[in-house]
Amino acid sequence: MAGGGGTRLWPASRRRKAKQFLSLGLPAGRTLIGATVHRILPVCPSEHVFVVAGASQVEDVQKALPEIPAANVIAEPIGRNTAPCIGLAAEALFARDPDAVLAVLPADHHIANEKAFAAVVSEALELAEKLDRIVTVGIRPTRPETGYGYIRMSPSPSHGAAYDVEAFVEKPDGVTARKYVESGRYVWNSGMFFFRASKIREEIRRHLPETAEAFDAIGKAFAAGDAAPVVARVFPTLPSISIDYGVMEKTTGILVIPGDFGWNDVGSWSAVADIARENKDAEGNVAIGNTILVKSRDTLIVSESDQLVTAVGVEGLVIVATKDAVLVCPKERTQEVRDIVAELERRGKRDLL
Amino acid sequence: MAGGGGTRLWPASRRRKAKQFLSLGLPAGRTLIGATVHRILPVCPSEHVFVVAGASQVEDVQKALPEIPAANVIAEPIGRNTAPCIGLAAEALFARDPDAVLAVLPADHHIANEKAFAAVVSEALELAEKLDRIVTVGIRPTRPETGYGYIRMSPSPSHGAAYDVEAFVEKPDGVTARKYVESGRYVWNSGMFFFRASKIREEIRRHLPETAEAFDAIGKAFAAGDAAPVVARVFPTLPSISIDYGVMEKTTGILVIPGDFGWNDVGSWSAVADIARENKDAEGNVAIGNTILVKSRDTLIVSESDQLVTAVGVEGLVIVATKDAVLVCPKERTQEVRDIVAELERRGKRDLL
Repeated sequence: MAGGGGTRLWPASRRRKAKQFLSLGLPAGRTLIGATVHRILPVCPSEHVFVVAGASQVEDVQKALPEIPAANVIAEPIGRNTAPCIGLAAEALFARDPDAVLAVLPADHHIANEKAFAAVVSEALELAEKLDRIVTVGIRPTRPETGYGYIRMSPSPSHGAAYDVEAFVEKPDGVTARKYVESGRYVWNSGMFFFRASKIREEIRRHLPETAEAFDAIGKAFAAGDAAPVVARVFPTLPSISIDYGVMEKTTGILVIPGDFGWNDVGSWSAVADIARENKDAEGNVAIGNTILVKSRDTLIVSESDQLVTAVGVEGLVIVATKDAVLVCPKERTQEVRDIVAELERRGKRDLL
Repeated sequence: MAGGGGTRLWPASRRRKAKQFLSLGLPAGRTLIGATVHRILPVCPSEHVFVVAGASQVEDVQKALPEIPAANVIAEPIGRNTAPCIGLAAEALFARDPDAVLAVLPADHHIANEKAFAAVVSEALELAEKLDRIVTVGIRPTRPETGYGYIRMSPSPSHGAAYDVEAFVEKPDGVTARKYVESGRYVWNSGMFFFRASKIREEIRRHLPETAEAFDAIGKAFAAGDAAPVVARVFPTLPSISIDYGVMEKTTGILVIPGDFGWNDVGSWSAVADIARENKDAEGNVAIGNTILVKSRDTLIVSESDQLVTAVGVEGLVIVATKDAVLVCPKERTQEVRDIVAELERRGKRDLL
């Protein structure tokens, strides 16, 4: 799933330059989407990797992923959140192979331990295929985060490393999050899902019956080998709804495998500093691009152009410069970049959004 | 005197783009040198304003000061500190008018109260002419600054508002500076001097006798109306020495008028924030150029190009972006911009110096 745009990493990310296409100090100039594909290759050959992206992003995807066949990039005419995105992919792959098993992965996350990740994915795919159930991977929480949804697991595993999902729960407040973490029964909802194409097709039709007709038409068009015109006509009529809210919270029998592989959703600049851990100097600084940092601590400094970005005597800051914009912000307040974005909207500065 | 280059306001100031040519949020897009000329005009008509600058800066001076006759810009072939600079100006003006009285003013200072300044300058010129003595203006210290030289005054005034100078003293340490300020007998050395051209010619010849021959040749050349070739040949042979060290500390009979007109030598970015006082918002921020500042306090944010410079949730910072460089620094550590400059030197990045 590479359909998102976003401004949480503004000024590097923009509505038209989503986070998945950023490098952000990843090794070998790799993008987040490139790293996502790279780490799935031990489990899934590149010709079996499919990418769903916005129509305007198809070119960016092909440039970022030269190893993926061009025909494997599925264009959404318009963003409609994850339920229609996953439904679209399920129709495309079911038409190719009614026995297809899908690993649905967000394109813009970071995972530190790729080996551990590949092992979890293998197990999830195996369970999804063998049991014909929906499997998800939950992230063992490392802090009482209020920005993620949580999954409550059964007290003990039911199949190998997998637990029964008791409930998907919305983003909690701080007190509730602390209880979740202390209980040991909750994991973060990572947005990764594993299922047979046939299984998710049924689930979507059951829980979002108003979409059945549209997906039937799309499925037929994929089977006929000429889906684009039908997708263009029908997809925009689908409701914008997440797979969590539309399906996962309503259905039963989901399995969850708790994962512990250094997951990070790269949701803010402080998260970027976290994933660049290996590039940290002795003072905890991370420097990306053309930069000079003197007598500073715990600071992320990024130059995305030729411009030299420097700082002296600073602590706990994020400093990011692109060709047309600079952002300075304390690390613990990087969520507030949205205030800048809101101000740009107010001023009608579309070129900077 | 507009001969200096400098990097204390890096990245805005460079070796080749001295501080006097910066605007830094001054009203009406004026440069520091433009403001210097503007505030002397009530005392001295523009055709009597002369500017000594480096040969490579002559064009910048003419652009910044269209009101000054081009012939009034005197080029130094090479920088030789203030004693040769003032000697050169004295020869040029003495050749024009043996009765000329000079007000020697640094081009890159800021003065808040221009009326009070003009009154002090008038009195200083009058005393210099009438008594044929060297007159200087001292600044009433507002803090125990260790970055300036001080002047010790006689216990009471000797001529109008003017005191006898008892001594020019070098930059003191903190303890000494505090004593100076508490005594009420010391003022900061502002580098502004007033004298007849004939007087300073004599003083330079007496205290720097090794320069007499060179200045004689230069004076003759000015009198003959074709000084440039002689200046080019002779000026570089002069020693590099300040007028304070070369003349003022050695001679007697100097008068000092204590001034109190909001003087600021714009020696660092925090000084820039101080002089932009009128542009401060309710949170003590100063924003210059294309900037957005959100939930921040006591911060100077400057964009010198089209690039948008933004900050969220910061306090007490200086953030400056030019076309090719960005600087972020706490206000109280702006002197340490020299560490960045030193690093650029080490890396051989001459284009950024």
